[in-house]
Amino acid sequence: MKLIRFGAPGEERPGVEVDGVRYDVSLLVDDYDAKFFSNGGFANLRRALDDGDVTKLAQVDADVRLGPPVARPGKLICVGLNYLDHAKEFGNRPAPEEPVLFMKATSAVCGANDLLVRPPDAEKLDYEVELALLIGSVTKEVSEADAMHSVAGYMMANDVSERAFQKEHCGQWMKGKSYDGFAPLGPYLVTRDEIDDPHRLGLWTDVNGEHRQSGNTRDMIFSVPFLISYISKFMTLEPGDVILTGTPSGVAMGMDEPDYLTPGDVLECGIDGLGSSRREVVGAVRLEM
Amino acid sequence: MKLIRFGAPGEERPGVEVDGVRYDVSLLVDDYDAKFFSNGGFANLRRALDDGDVTKLAQVDADVRLGPPVARPGKLICVGLNYLDHAKEFGNRPAPEEPVLFMKATSAVCGANDLLVRPPDAEKLDYEVELALLIGSVTKEVSEADAMHSVAGYMMANDVSERAFQKEHCGQWMKGKSYDGFAPLGPYLVTRDEIDDPHRLGLWTDVNGEHRQSGNTRDMIFSVPFLISYISKFMTLEPGDVILTGTPSGVAMGMDEPDYLTPGDVLECGIDGLGSSRREVVGAVRLEM
Repeated sequence: MKLIRFGAPGEERPGVEVDGVRYDVSLLVDDYDAKFFSNGGFANLRRALDDGDVTKLAQVDADVRLGPPVARPGKLICVGLNYLDHAKEFGNRPAPEEPVLFMKATSAVCGANDLLVRPPDAEKLDYEVELALLIGSVTKEVSEADAMHSVAGYMMANDVSERAFQKEHCGQWMKGKSYDGFAPLGPYLVTRDEIDDPHRLGLWTDVNGEHRQSGNTRDMIFSVPFLISYISKFMTLEPGDVILTGTPSGVAMGMDEPDYLTPGDVLECGIDGLGSSRREVVGAVRLEM
Repeated sequence: MKLIRFGAPGEERPGVEVDGVRYDVSLLVDDYDAKFFSNGGFANLRRALDDGDVTKLAQVDADVRLGPPVARPGKLICVGLNYLDHAKEFGNRPAPEEPVLFMKATSAVCGANDLLVRPPDAEKLDYEVELALLIGSVTKEVSEADAMHSVAGYMMANDVSERAFQKEHCGQWMKGKSYDGFAPLGPYLVTRDEIDDPHRLGLWTDVNGEHRQSGNTRDMIFSVPFLISYISKFMTLEPGDVILTGTPSGVAMGMDEPDYLTPGDVLECGIDGLGSSRREVVGAVRLEM
């Protein structure tokens, strides 16, 4: 099942995508939020759709904005340096012995195709396409063997980063990871049952049509169940939390002459089975007086 | 005005404390959450209390549990090394040139006097009493001159930390900052109008009756309005977000022979005008099979 949320920012309504057509399910579901995930929402929605004729639902216009496919998460946890080739390009680092964890501000979440606003004073705006996991149940100190039960679904994410903010302003990384729009999710959420193996998904980034990132989740250093088990020892994962699992090589920072994103650029990304996105980069309107 | 939330974890109801007596205001207010803060909730509540006779409200038993005085924040942002003497004890660091920022998982929030559960495998459990700011309005790229308008109120917080998780497991700091119960807030929230100067508050920590931390917010390296202005350049602050402003010296890690918290210890903290707290440290019940 593919879930979407559509409409203006902050006013998104829940929908589903079936055979490439989008339907409004706001008569059936309030929102795709913690309450929905933790109370059998997926199964109930699927049953309701199976019982009825999905084509009788109101269709969503093809050009309507897609918001993030899930409501604002409680936590947005990121795994750093989880692909060896990216660790190398990130200051020639070895594979970390344990997952590197950091957080993005949840206020950075946006729709997959929203404009990407470059912050005022930003000079090193970068992209990181990543497989995102949606947590479906309360998860604390879970074993690796049991960890996949905690995954409700998968989305494409981008850990948009400002490298100077991240690394040149007294730390920690979250400073360069949290500006509004730095955490696009979607275009849609795919429920766990539809992805046979999350460790066999190609993922890519193009900038202005030029291929920049081209990786595969099989090259993750730490697997999805290992990551969930590991993180759950340090904090309790809750329904609606989102985990970004790291990015392969090809980010601007790793280039011999980094070609960071600037206004006018077009950023496109995709992950096998999880859709693709297209964002235009624009300059910020400076607010401070 | 002093606001409290009382009752079992996850089922807290809003109240007020007037002349040392606690009253239930759940007939007047749903919860102290983003909606309340951003829609003039304080002013409306004060008016309702002024119009009526507060002593006619239902009293809250003196022994009822106090939860965090505000609903789960969207973000829990921490400022590291914001007191020079603490920066020194933290690996003999100089004053940072800019605020060091990191996040705690919001799932770590708890009541001021809740049991402090030491995580399994934890060996370096530490305390950091801190002044916490509650954000009351959407704040983006605000100037230092205007920043105080964003503060809805003040609370005592403790940035409970596990130093090995924080520093010896491939980073970043949030790994040692996010276990359940690592972010006590309260006992109560004090509205901004009742604190003349947030930079003139004594704050202290005792462990088993022994004085460990004894500082004053006047020694912050970066002031409250500077911090808000600074953070708001990197991310949008929203109603209900909480900022922890750093801790003075005296943490266990800074001792010649660190005396970390262990089960049986009693941790007490206080800040002038913001109340005090008492937590007992207990061992975790190991969950993983």
